[in-house]
Amino acid sequence: MKRRDFLTKSVLGGGAAVAATTLAAPAIAQSVIEWRMVHSWPKGLPGVGVGAERLARRIEAMSGGRMKINVFAAGELVPALGCMDAVMDGTAEMGHDASFYHVGKHPMLAAFFAVPFGMTGDEQAAWLLHSGGQQLWDELNSQFGIISMPAGQTSAQSFGWFKKEINTPEDFQGLKIRMPGLGGEMVKKLGATPVLLPGGEIFAALQSGAVDAAEFIGPVNDLPMGFHQVAKISYGPGVQEPGGTVQAMFNTAKFQELPTDLQEIIRAACHAGHEDMKVEYDLQSGRAMETLRVEHGVEFRRLERPVLEALGKAAGEVIQESYDAGDDLTRRIWDSYLASRADTMRFLRFNEQAFLNARTLDFPFPGPQAT
Amino acid sequence: MKRRDFLTKSVLGGGAAVAATTLAAPAIAQSVIEWRMVHSWPKGLPGVGVGAERLARRIEAMSGGRMKINVFAAGELVPALGCMDAVMDGTAEMGHDASFYHVGKHPMLAAFFAVPFGMTGDEQAAWLLHSGGQQLWDELNSQFGIISMPAGQTSAQSFGWFKKEINTPEDFQGLKIRMPGLGGEMVKKLGATPVLLPGGEIFAALQSGAVDAAEFIGPVNDLPMGFHQVAKISYGPGVQEPGGTVQAMFNTAKFQELPTDLQEIIRAACHAGHEDMKVEYDLQSGRAMETLRVEHGVEFRRLERPVLEALGKAAGEVIQESYDAGDDLTRRIWDSYLASRADTMRFLRFNEQAFLNARTLDFPFPGPQAT
Repeated sequence: MKRRDFLTKSVLGGGAAVAATTLAAPAIAQSVIEWRMVHSWPKGLPGVGVGAERLARRIEAMSGGRMKINVFAAGELVPALGCMDAVMDGTAEMGHDASFYHVGKHPMLAAFFAVPFGMTGDEQAAWLLHSGGQQLWDELNSQFGIISMPAGQTSAQSFGWFKKEINTPEDFQGLKIRMPGLGGEMVKKLGATPVLLPGGEIFAALQSGAVDAAEFIGPVNDLPMGFHQVAKISYGPGVQEPGGTVQAMFNTAKFQELPTDLQEIIRAACHAGHEDMKVEYDLQSGRAMETLRVEHGVEFRRLERPVLEALGKAAGEVIQESYDAGDDLTRRIWDSYLASRADTMRFLRFNEQAFLNARTLDFPFPGPQAT
Repeated sequence: MKRRDFLTKSVLGGGAAVAATTLAAPAIAQSVIEWRMVHSWPKGLPGVGVGAERLARRIEAMSGGRMKINVFAAGELVPALGCMDAVMDGTAEMGHDASFYHVGKHPMLAAFFAVPFGMTGDEQAAWLLHSGGQQLWDELNSQFGIISMPAGQTSAQSFGWFKKEINTPEDFQGLKIRMPGLGGEMVKKLGATPVLLPGGEIFAALQSGAVDAAEFIGPVNDLPMGFHQVAKISYGPGVQEPGGTVQAMFNTAKFQELPTDLQEIIRAACHAGHEDMKVEYDLQSGRAMETLRVEHGVEFRRLERPVLEALGKAAGEVIQESYDAGDDLTRRIWDSYLASRADTMRFLRFNEQAFLNARTLDFPFPGPQAT
């Protein structure tokens, strides 16, 4: 079926967009709800960009042809960072980006994406779904007339690409690093200068020396950007963004006009995408790491303990300052976030984290071993 | 709306099961597809049992009243371990349990639930969704006329409840442990006797001394079972089941009769439930740990490195033996499983695992701290 065929406002029985069998399928033609989704990613970018497209297709497939979602990548309908405005004013019914792009509207929008030394994406989902986080996000978003749902996550990111070694906290002094959000505030406390740059400008800035180091997402996205051509050391772990939650935003009025079954379909599609993107990142970045190491001579290094301690202390200060300077809602969000983090952290430390550590002991497992 | 109202075979417009507004909703009455779901859990059991109910309700809500799923807990329609047979012979159209209950049908059904020292639930999802695992599962299941999908996961489990300390590998000698599946094979190599018991019989067996130790799931499920009343030490991490994948099974013929939109709805509902259950376990088990420690004096202990090394070596032997003795499909499953594990393990070790370790360093984060 040609893309053009979808653009009609009504689909008669027999089209591919209608259920393939007649069992329990609507017996007559229905109107089609046509929506626009704007996202902030380069078209087809693995992970986040693919996730936006997949979300649209999944909703359409589940709707049995009742919904059509036209997807616009960064710049196609509105600028990359203009998605929230577009959803607020109804230019698009829905958007797909990272809430921390919009800290100008409220600083706590950063916390719903990622917090340095905060929670992994799974922990953030535990908070949002089961520990009051979604209600606080709804309260924060209500002043903008939007609803956000977790719709993807980047898994724990890399700390970034460096031209020179970071061995002590002092090595951050004077360093110009592309690192946005609260992570940028964190490295600023160690004397670095965080620089804000769109993803597409990072390579040139690294090459020219406009920045000394740069964080983007992780190996699968970093590889095609070519950062390894101008910086040979990739540090981990990405304590600045231990799990970036990608949001789907909806114009509240438009969302509430939908029948409840389509609302449920959208919720489940976002939910499914949240895990789907995470595990795909883990897999594809694992493969990209091997390519970067073997074919491009990249060194993957772990930040040393004194560096991690200094970064952790700085992260704590950034959060404390946000807490002290914040309004009532800001403090309620932090209280809820940190309480949920304490609960999941207690269990993960005992089980999943301890398992991951136990697994890295050597033992004679057959088959391919991790390198 | 009363439960009884759902039992009618057709729903006329205006019922709660029909979309709340008429926008894009079917204009005339539809037939309702009524299915039975059998699951193997005690009714309402947090995590797995709640997940089965939630899956049914989520599919119904997304179907806009076109599907009705009647849920039967363990023993209500068929015995707890009879779900696969029930789905195979059409007694129920779908089931919800753990594939390793059915190793009598094929030993590799164990690997689609959990492998000692294998993959976490998220890694298993990466394998199933993005690295060929689902195709192999489909191939294995095709001889039974069923389709399985990941529909939940337990997160990394606990290693179990012990009356006496485990300090060296020798402490397993002569120990009777309730530990099913490949994990049971692992401890057997250290001289323990794995005992198979339904969940409901574990407490009495621990109390009477019929078993010396027992693994069930993790704190949130273990707390109401009362194991802490007869064994005071809970060991972690649960290397025997680093992430138990809960499956939704479908009678293939019944599934394929569904319109494609309902098939997609079911896929997304399973997918959403897979993450939902994981993060709820992490949160609720974190809280249950605190209750067990503070109110019941339970000691949470980490297995020592020599014990983990011995268990890891034993797990490797169990897998090697399965590989060597297995048929062609068995070897292809292990090759695929281990290759995917190597890819995700490489990335997690560098980022998520390293982040979790970095986070346990002390730094002045405001708010509640994990204990």
